[in-house]
Amino acid sequence: MNTPSHGTEKTLDPADWQAMRALGHRMVDDMMEYLETLRDRPVWQPIPDRVRARFGSPVPEAPEGAESAYDDFVENVLPYPHGNLHPRAWGWVNGQGTPFGALADFVASVMNTNAHGGDNAASLVEAQVITWFKDLLGFPSDASGLLLSGGSMANLVGLAIALNVKAEVDVQQVGLAAAPRRMVLYASSQTHLSVTKAVRLLGLGADALRVIPVDERFQIDLVALNEALASDRAAGFHPFCVVGNLGTVNTGAVDDLTALANLAARERLWFHVDGAFGALAALSPELRGMTAGMERADSLAFDPHKWMYMPIDVGCVLVRDAEHHRNTFAVKADYLTQLPGGPSATPNWFSDFGIQLSRRFSALKVWMSLKEHGAGKYRALIAQNVEHARYLARLIDESPHLELLAPMALNVVCFRFAPVGAEVESLDELNERLLVRLQESGVATPSHTVINGRFALRVANTNHRTRAEDFDVLVSEVVRLGHALILERRGAVCSTP
Amino acid sequence: MNTPSHGTEKTLDPADWQAMRALGHRMVDDMMEYLETLRDRPVWQPIPDRVRARFGSPVPEAPEGAESAYDDFVENVLPYPHGNLHPRAWGWVNGQGTPFGALADFVASVMNTNAHGGDNAASLVEAQVITWFKDLLGFPSDASGLLLSGGSMANLVGLAIALNVKAEVDVQQVGLAAAPRRMVLYASSQTHLSVTKAVRLLGLGADALRVIPVDERFQIDLVALNEALASDRAAGFHPFCVVGNLGTVNTGAVDDLTALANLAARERLWFHVDGAFGALAALSPELRGMTAGMERADSLAFDPHKWMYMPIDVGCVLVRDAEHHRNTFAVKADYLTQLPGGPSATPNWFSDFGIQLSRRFSALKVWMSLKEHGAGKYRALIAQNVEHARYLARLIDESPHLELLAPMALNVVCFRFAPVGAEVESLDELNERLLVRLQESGVATPSHTVINGRFALRVANTNHRTRAEDFDVLVSEVVRLGHALILERRGAVCSTP
Repeated sequence: MNTPSHGTEKTLDPADWQAMRALGHRMVDDMMEYLETLRDRPVWQPIPDRVRARFGSPVPEAPEGAESAYDDFVENVLPYPHGNLHPRAWGWVNGQGTPFGALADFVASVMNTNAHGGDNAASLVEAQVITWFKDLLGFPSDASGLLLSGGSMANLVGLAIALNVKAEVDVQQVGLAAAPRRMVLYASSQTHLSVTKAVRLLGLGADALRVIPVDERFQIDLVALNEALASDRAAGFHPFCVVGNLGTVNTGAVDDLTALANLAARERLWFHVDGAFGALAALSPELRGMTAGMERADSLAFDPHKWMYMPIDVGCVLVRDAEHHRNTFAVKADYLTQLPGGPSATPNWFSDFGIQLSRRFSALKVWMSLKEHGAGKYRALIAQNVEHARYLARLIDESPHLELLAPMALNVVCFRFAPVGAEVESLDELNERLLVRLQESGVATPSHTVINGRFALRVANTNHRTRAEDFDVLVSEVVRLGHALILERRGAVCSTP
Repeated sequence: MNTPSHGTEKTLDPADWQAMRALGHRMVDDMMEYLETLRDRPVWQPIPDRVRARFGSPVPEAPEGAESAYDDFVENVLPYPHGNLHPRAWGWVNGQGTPFGALADFVASVMNTNAHGGDNAASLVEAQVITWFKDLLGFPSDASGLLLSGGSMANLVGLAIALNVKAEVDVQQVGLAAAPRRMVLYASSQTHLSVTKAVRLLGLGADALRVIPVDERFQIDLVALNEALASDRAAGFHPFCVVGNLGTVNTGAVDDLTALANLAARERLWFHVDGAFGALAALSPELRGMTAGMERADSLAFDPHKWMYMPIDVGCVLVRDAEHHRNTFAVKADYLTQLPGGPSATPNWFSDFGIQLSRRFSALKVWMSLKEHGAGKYRALIAQNVEHARYLARLIDESPHLELLAPMALNVVCFRFAPVGAEVESLDELNERLLVRLQESGVATPSHTVINGRFALRVANTNHRTRAEDFDVLVSEVVRLGHALILERRGAVCSTP
């Protein structure tokens, strides 16, 4: 081996810092322009084949430089977004992020903290953000919490703790197969798929998830739940957890969380609440009543990147008993012990409270955004989203061409085009075609689901950019497209010999 | 309900876009200045109590505005980093990120894509990045892959697939308890703690992980492994997986992956390789030989945010059999089916290949960075890191005051201060005090571990900013501090009456 040349080393730092600064300025200008003019562009647009083909190129061996890489982004990536930023984007449950939130993510990436813990400001910021969330959502001050990538991870963490705390054996050491009785848990048919995913991943098997029917408001049927519990106990199973929904994906329904909390206490079950977006309704004084019982959860999942409009990703789990939380995830290793001083000296490592050891400094955008706007602004926006959703529901209710398919709860509106007297062979197929055409027109992007067997257009309003007029546009476009499709079909039928 | 006022709605968008642009420019300037002058600042510094106390303030109810929030960041967060950016930061295994990588994260946060899939450019970018990684690491073109937050998640995903594929029952449906034989897997004593975490989380229990001893080079002992396998089979267990290490955290050791691949084929085990940082050594033609056998893995975990210096977080898992991968994670839901057109129309949803449904658009920084620098630059930097680590090892070897504690493999150097002839009661305690003092001085941040029962200073060189001279500084500082501590101790002993 030769002695490395001193002073001629390579680095990824730019040779010309001034050029990188100038590029950074251009990127800021472009992005602000992009965000400021969102309303003038289509919500979504298809990707031309010419652009699509570009993504088949092999890994670049030679450098093309930062400017060229950014130009490629501007030309071929930026114009073809998922579509969740626009004022008329209401598909799935997405937030939009904010300009300053994105800038906060930039400085977080500059600091490039591995937020697994240690004695540094990132640890203090995350601890403070979790304290703020406990305050905002009515959790006790000695509860623990963790930021993670979203509701799927938060549900997994909550259920993992439930399983470990309630198991009759030391599952971490001897495994689920050593448990004397099969462990089972309960959730309604409207529960998010991430709960099924978690149950499978934890080794319980999907059969362990007892799917309880819902009532006409899509809330868990408490009588059926009690029957299932009794039946399982009689059959020798080990019920260990009940999951409450606070804002289902399909309709925004909220289970009776107080009743579930009482049942969990009586039956000695872990009470996990999936409040992925609904939990944050508690920020609004007018809506807080709908979340009653949530504050009694043993673990609570929610997503600041949904109904607090933070840039993706930042989810959160709160856990009533910090020791249970830590005991489920902490594993010791020689290379991660703490010294009495220096960067490793800190009482808690976040990596002891979850699956990840490498963790992005996601707390920073939450911290900077809450300081930017204050909690009051979020309270008002969440209330505005619900008010707007009620406005949309009323427009639908008043239209002879449209039909609500589920009772309004929170901020989700499920409906379809169903004009009185029109001869329609299949409303499902018509509405599916209508939705695709609406989405492809770039005017609005509701998503879809199936409600009581019927294909539904689904609007989930967690959009801080939406105005009431955007729902006027949605309703008139759906009605216009629906009638146009009926005419097309008649034309097609008539022209068939 | 009243009709919402049209046109007076609230939003999180700035009232003054020009002011937000100006703030963005200032943030870019500050961050570039910060990165350009890193070398002049301490690697790490303690947080003053005055600053620490600020993070106890309650959640802000009123807005303070973006400028003020950013000023708070500059004053109270930025000066107290984890310390992994600096040219003399070598603790744990951290990358540093890059200026353009951070800007790429900014534009990703502006687009705010939920990268779960769908017909949008983010899906194409991630698919292309995974193709590039398959090419770079010698995986077949029909393999699948997923970006995720890091090695812990990648190991969990790999082992989850292994378990599902190899189980004698449909574990996803009926659970681990229904398996006729206990499932067990094999890994060396040097294996990362995330493997234990994964094994616990999957419900197998830590007992299922058979910890195999290592030889003097810290590689898995193949004789012991074969004996354990035979013994488990004889006792009625069900061996299903062997984990190979490609760069252990403690010493950077690489198991004999070809031998493990042969054994896995012969014994019909899933072959998972934890290459969290070591896999990327394959980018360097000079180092590729050390990774031989990796390309035969059924699943491979590695971290672009480690040895490709990408901003945290971006890890990756590659899986040889895409169907196995998908079958382990895909769950159907009414609200996630695909329509024949529009934003949901795409053959693969990334969320079907992992735990997360909400996923950050992490692929963008990888894509933009690989275009910026070209793969060739990464090949050269990885080789440079190893060359520098060898240089450090030689400096240690040549010093009468220092002692190497493990053979050099890849880029990790474990050593201690152990001067010839010095009377030292406890080298462990001395080296621990030395390390804390070194870290707190701000000169350099190696981390620590325990090698054969001895406390070791540990340098993991995945730093694109390090120059050879930085190791000259490290060695002279360690020797200086070590002697100073010995003198202090003698003084303390002499002054004791």
